[in-house]
Amino acid sequence: MKNLKKIILLSILTFSMLPVFAQKASWIWYPGDFDIYMSNVMQNRRTERGSFFPVFWKMDSHYVLVDFHKEFTLSQPEEVRLFVEGTYHVKIDGQAITGFPKTINIPAGKHKLSLKVYSQGTVPAIFVQGKTIVSDDTWLTTFEDKEWIDQSGKVSDKSGTTFVSAGSWNLSDPNVLPSTFKLPVVAQYAVKKEQAGNGYVADFGKETFGFIKVHGLKGKGKLSLYYGESKEESLSIDKCETLDYLEVNLANKKDSIMPLSKAFRFVNIQADNAVTADSISMLYEYSPVTERGSFKSSDAELNKIYDVAKYTFHLNTREFFIDGIKRDRWVWSGDAYQSYLMNYYSFFDAPTVKRTLLAQRGKDPVTAHINTIMDYSFYWFLGIYDYYKFTGDKKFVQDIYPRMQSLMTYIDGRKNKNGLLEWMPGDWIFIDWADKLSKDGEVSFEQLLYARSLETMALCANLANDTANAAKYDQDAKALKTKIFDLYWNQNKNALVHSRIADQPTDNVTRYANMFGIFFDYFTPEQKLAVKEHVLLNDKIAKITTPYMRFYELEALCAMGEQSYVLKEMKSYWGGMLKLGATSFWEEYNPDKKGVEHLEMYGRPFGKSLCHAWGASPIYLLGKYYLGVSPNAPGYETYTIQPNLGGLEWMEGKVPTANGNISVYINKKEIKVSSATGVGRLKIKSKTKPVVKDAEVKEVSKGIYEVLIEKGKDYNVRYSG
Amino acid sequence: MKNLKKIILLSILTFSMLPVFAQKASWIWYPGDFDIYMSNVMQNRRTERGSFFPVFWKMDSHYVLVDFHKEFTLSQPEEVRLFVEGTYHVKIDGQAITGFPKTINIPAGKHKLSLKVYSQGTVPAIFVQGKTIVSDDTWLTTFEDKEWIDQSGKVSDKSGTTFVSAGSWNLSDPNVLPSTFKLPVVAQYAVKKEQAGNGYVADFGKETFGFIKVHGLKGKGKLSLYYGESKEESLSIDKCETLDYLEVNLANKKDSIMPLSKAFRFVNIQADNAVTADSISMLYEYSPVTERGSFKSSDAELNKIYDVAKYTFHLNTREFFIDGIKRDRWVWSGDAYQSYLMNYYSFFDAPTVKRTLLAQRGKDPVTAHINTIMDYSFYWFLGIYDYYKFTGDKKFVQDIYPRMQSLMTYIDGRKNKNGLLEWMPGDWIFIDWADKLSKDGEVSFEQLLYARSLETMALCANLANDTANAAKYDQDAKALKTKIFDLYWNQNKNALVHSRIADQPTDNVTRYANMFGIFFDYFTPEQKLAVKEHVLLNDKIAKITTPYMRFYELEALCAMGEQSYVLKEMKSYWGGMLKLGATSFWEEYNPDKKGVEHLEMYGRPFGKSLCHAWGASPIYLLGKYYLGVSPNAPGYETYTIQPNLGGLEWMEGKVPTANGNISVYINKKEIKVSSATGVGRLKIKSKTKPVVKDAEVKEVSKGIYEVLIEKGKDYNVRYSG
Repeated sequence: MKNLKKIILLSILTFSMLPVFAQKASWIWYPGDFDIYMSNVMQNRRTERGSFFPVFWKMDSHYVLVDFHKEFTLSQPEEVRLFVEGTYHVKIDGQAITGFPKTINIPAGKHKLSLKVYSQGTVPAIFVQGKTIVSDDTWLTTFEDKEWIDQSGKVSDKSGTTFVSAGSWNLSDPNVLPSTFKLPVVAQYAVKKEQAGNGYVADFGKETFGFIKVHGLKGKGKLSLYYGESKEESLSIDKCETLDYLEVNLANKKDSIMPLSKAFRFVNIQADNAVTADSISMLYEYSPVTERGSFKSSDAELNKIYDVAKYTFHLNTREFFIDGIKRDRWVWSGDAYQSYLMNYYSFFDAPTVKRTLLAQRGKDPVTAHINTIMDYSFYWFLGIYDYYKFTGDKKFVQDIYPRMQSLMTYIDGRKNKNGLLEWMPGDWIFIDWADKLSKDGEVSFEQLLYARSLETMALCANLANDTANAAKYDQDAKALKTKIFDLYWNQNKNALVHSRIADQPTDNVTRYANMFGIFFDYFTPEQKLAVKEHVLLNDKIAKITTPYMRFYELEALCAMGEQSYVLKEMKSYWGGMLKLGATSFWEEYNPDKKGVEHLEMYGRPFGKSLCHAWGASPIYLLGKYYLGVSPNAPGYETYTIQPNLGGLEWMEGKVPTANGNISVYINKKEIKVSSATGVGRLKIKSKTKPVVKDAEVKEVSKGIYEVLIEKGKDYNVRYSG
Repeated sequence: MKNLKKIILLSILTFSMLPVFAQKASWIWYPGDFDIYMSNVMQNRRTERGSFFPVFWKMDSHYVLVDFHKEFTLSQPEEVRLFVEGTYHVKIDGQAITGFPKTINIPAGKHKLSLKVYSQGTVPAIFVQGKTIVSDDTWLTTFEDKEWIDQSGKVSDKSGTTFVSAGSWNLSDPNVLPSTFKLPVVAQYAVKKEQAGNGYVADFGKETFGFIKVHGLKGKGKLSLYYGESKEESLSIDKCETLDYLEVNLANKKDSIMPLSKAFRFVNIQADNAVTADSISMLYEYSPVTERGSFKSSDAELNKIYDVAKYTFHLNTREFFIDGIKRDRWVWSGDAYQSYLMNYYSFFDAPTVKRTLLAQRGKDPVTAHINTIMDYSFYWFLGIYDYYKFTGDKKFVQDIYPRMQSLMTYIDGRKNKNGLLEWMPGDWIFIDWADKLSKDGEVSFEQLLYARSLETMALCANLANDTANAAKYDQDAKALKTKIFDLYWNQNKNALVHSRIADQPTDNVTRYANMFGIFFDYFTPEQKLAVKEHVLLNDKIAKITTPYMRFYELEALCAMGEQSYVLKEMKSYWGGMLKLGATSFWEEYNPDKKGVEHLEMYGRPFGKSLCHAWGASPIYLLGKYYLGVSPNAPGYETYTIQPNLGGLEWMEGKVPTANGNISVYINKKEIKVSSATGVGRLKIKSKTKPVVKDAEVKEVSKGIYEVLIEKGKDYNVRYSG
């Protein structure tokens, strides 16, 4: 209490020392540049058994020389403070000011303030703070001025400079340079210690992430920390995936924080005899996102699945959406695409989506698919349109559209003689981790994603007012869709076949293209039913063993109303991991495996990640297909609530939007709904006509009713489910 | 003498402490990256009256993550030392080594050593030193691995990685990181002091470049240094182009070196009363190139012109070839192109040419012309072929060929409906600094350079074994040349007209296209003579006032045998500057101007650079057209010596080549020649058949004789000139 008072006083003092500003400034930079820079920083933090382990794809970089400007009309003169990361010059109305001013005075009237910043190692960035003049994303930037002069010094009236609006993460402290950006940390402690070798294993109780702190370290010799997501891994000093070796030479006790964050539940501490330490703790590092979505139901196991999924997802939500916290700690597009969707039903953190999309795409020229994976390029397109659908942020689509075009130009340039995509040197055709999965020839799954990406390009071209190309992309998408069904649909198998080899369709049926065809809505209603029966619910078709593709498989089934079936699958699959003691969800789970077999992957005994973002899909499935909330028009201007208990007694939860939450409670007799945004359509399947106060109930088809949901009102519907 | 002994002893000691290595290692990086990085460093050193003044075009950057590898076959195990700039991992045969090893042991047999380096702020670079394993440009590098694995960890046998050989500047000290690269300095002193204001002006005797050092600085207050290429400039504390302000707060005397180099002859030192300094000196900074070319003649003024030109050129030869040492201190392609040619007749420093070409081109994507100037893109192509012609370095052409292609693709994409280039947003059509020079419509000069660049592409495509494109470029060049003569040749004016506007040729005749047409050999012999008379020697055609275009004007005249005329022009133009006290040659010289008018440019009283590389062209003209030495086959495998006294009594000089010098002495009766390389043809105009011992004299046409020059022999020819 005493301390708290002190803090409050201090805060008041600190604030009173600052001038009172009408506008909020933030650090700004060339759009996308800080995203690229910081993703380089983050992705280069991976180590494997003490070795630096960077990505293998191209890492891009920021523009090292950037010009910022804005025009202002001031009613009175204004003092403006300047903070810059880099070497810079300042111009008012094109006239340079000597030196590196920290404060400038701008006279009343219309004036143009420009800063040009050079920074090779960090992103050129500025923070400008006056009373009305502040740096924000309304400033214009360029990486090249296309002006020219004559020998009298006169500037030509013909300019070719392209300006784009500045990028920002809303970093609002002028004294903290963008390059020093770090996620927050909080101290946490082990819950158990167990003797092992000359030292002990500390158990932090559950999967976690951060920096180990060794307290009271003293002596001379070596201290080794072996990290484990499982106890087995931490005890395997030869095979654990991550470790820290410290050369200690301390006459007096000293605390030591490891320089790199690690993922672990267990830490095995082993020291030379001459080295001692009092204890260890950790600095838990986390992304300060807000938990907005929620889910609770009559099924305790399902609730646990939801909670562990959300924890798993939060751990993998960092500066960017990454795949796994032990490894790869990289931004993989296929993984991130699922994270985006989970995010819309949990944190609804738009900035992390934008950062991740920008970081993945990097800079031109495109020299490879995103992460070098063909399918991953396509997920990137899909992620952008989803972002627009959920947030309504048209400006971001317009800003990123040129980078969409150059990636699509790269892809279009790789079509084969049949107008289809097949492996070319440099491509990785991933699809999924699965035994004996053929990547040869023209794989139907890739063509399907290609078609969907062309549709996305058409939609985004329209948003960017590029109508000519919108028509072209639309035409290309339609032609490709027709071709897909002409070439891959097998009437006898009631399915799209997996691939064509040497211009001939194979007999091989896999789940991939077929499940995507369902939620892409590419099939006729008859085809859908046939695919459900002959592929999705057919045990003879090779099973999926990654949560990654389970995501889409279960989504396809939910899209066809199979919530009851999917609920059982969820409980069996994710519940299966929980029964094995999982405190976060895994990269891969095959119920047929036993014991430590579950830990193995990539030929390494502890190669598997036990905390993988793609393991968290129940967040998405429960929000979208059980609570049943999804946008129809961008940014939830209109949306649907179509709750489906799937056999549960009751459930309740919140789905976040850009303008507040949508709350749903449902049991077999009652539905309660309220929303902070847009106009919703509550769709109810009921044996009798539902009853609701102050709202109209419309029967849209036999046994299906609709109630219009206005924002700010509480609806309490009685029905018979 | 005592000191010298000490140094020698020290050297022996130092050497004996190093292991004896069979091979010479050097720092290596992704090719072009260090060139781009260091040109950013250099070009961002410009200031104008204390303001940072960066370039306006796009600055590129190095790849931040680079993989290096080489395969070795060792007869015995070898210890290898590793030096790295950046964070790295090391692999032997694909197996990572823990941590950041400084020394590794490689067993006997065939092994692959790989290092992968991440460095955001500086260029990822390695220095590897074993007995036989050394880092050099035979190592392979990539900025993206295109490999893929399955879930068992097995790497696919299908790779798409492109490797290119490493870049190097032959930096051979493992303990000096590439990013700290600096040119050498040597102390120099003022020759005169003159009281001015509260302080004095120090005169360093001639134009110079470096860091001012203030000795014995003491007190509290401000010290100001005003730099001047002229005394007038240094005295103009309000208008001088460069300056240094120091805030001094020193209780005891201390020496202070300015952080940034400056160009000056005069430095005006003004201090607050409470600030004192003992003296100033300078650290002259220079490129350690070797003076190989030489020229001396019976004309003392011409000798002075040559010496001042060479000094001017040396001052502007720095990490790269720059335009001027006061300003812009940037790498301009049109300026550098002339430097390349001067360099072949003076230092013959191939590395500086390569660096400059790589720095100018930067990285893909091409978003503008080089320096944003259309003509400057073309000079870049021409510079590459010249480099090949003078050095014979085919590998460089092959390495840079992809970057040539992408620039040409950019240019080809900007043709108008007539297949010609005209101004588009973003273009700067420079040509020359000249009053009222029209840049409108389709300017003939640009089409001429375009055609020459297409020819260059055809030649280089063949060198890079791209025969398909070689044929295409050749065809494009031929078509464009035909078009140029169809559209611009005016039979009445006996000249190419300056431009076409609205699809119609104008009546305007300028010198530019016409003089290039001569040494590009685009005219028929009749056209050449007509152009000489009606354009080059026609006073009614607007005069050229920059040494920049004087370079080509005089070259065209020399190419037509007008050495006597050109000699007079040189003496008048460059001699004119000397008479005005020039100690280096200027950016612009108009003999009609008076007094301080000469110092003005760009609307600023001291805006003009008084030490500009393009002012040094006599080096080139005297070497190529008076000593008359030029390569026929690449790298001087065959060459011509066609001396032309141009009215001089005698002259002598050396022309450098990659394999030694070619020496020429000539008076009106005697020619002495010796050469260290290739096979030369000495062409002699003589009234009688020349006489030479141990060599055959062949009359090739009336009064023109040839002697075949073999390397390593001295020839002494008697003739009658």
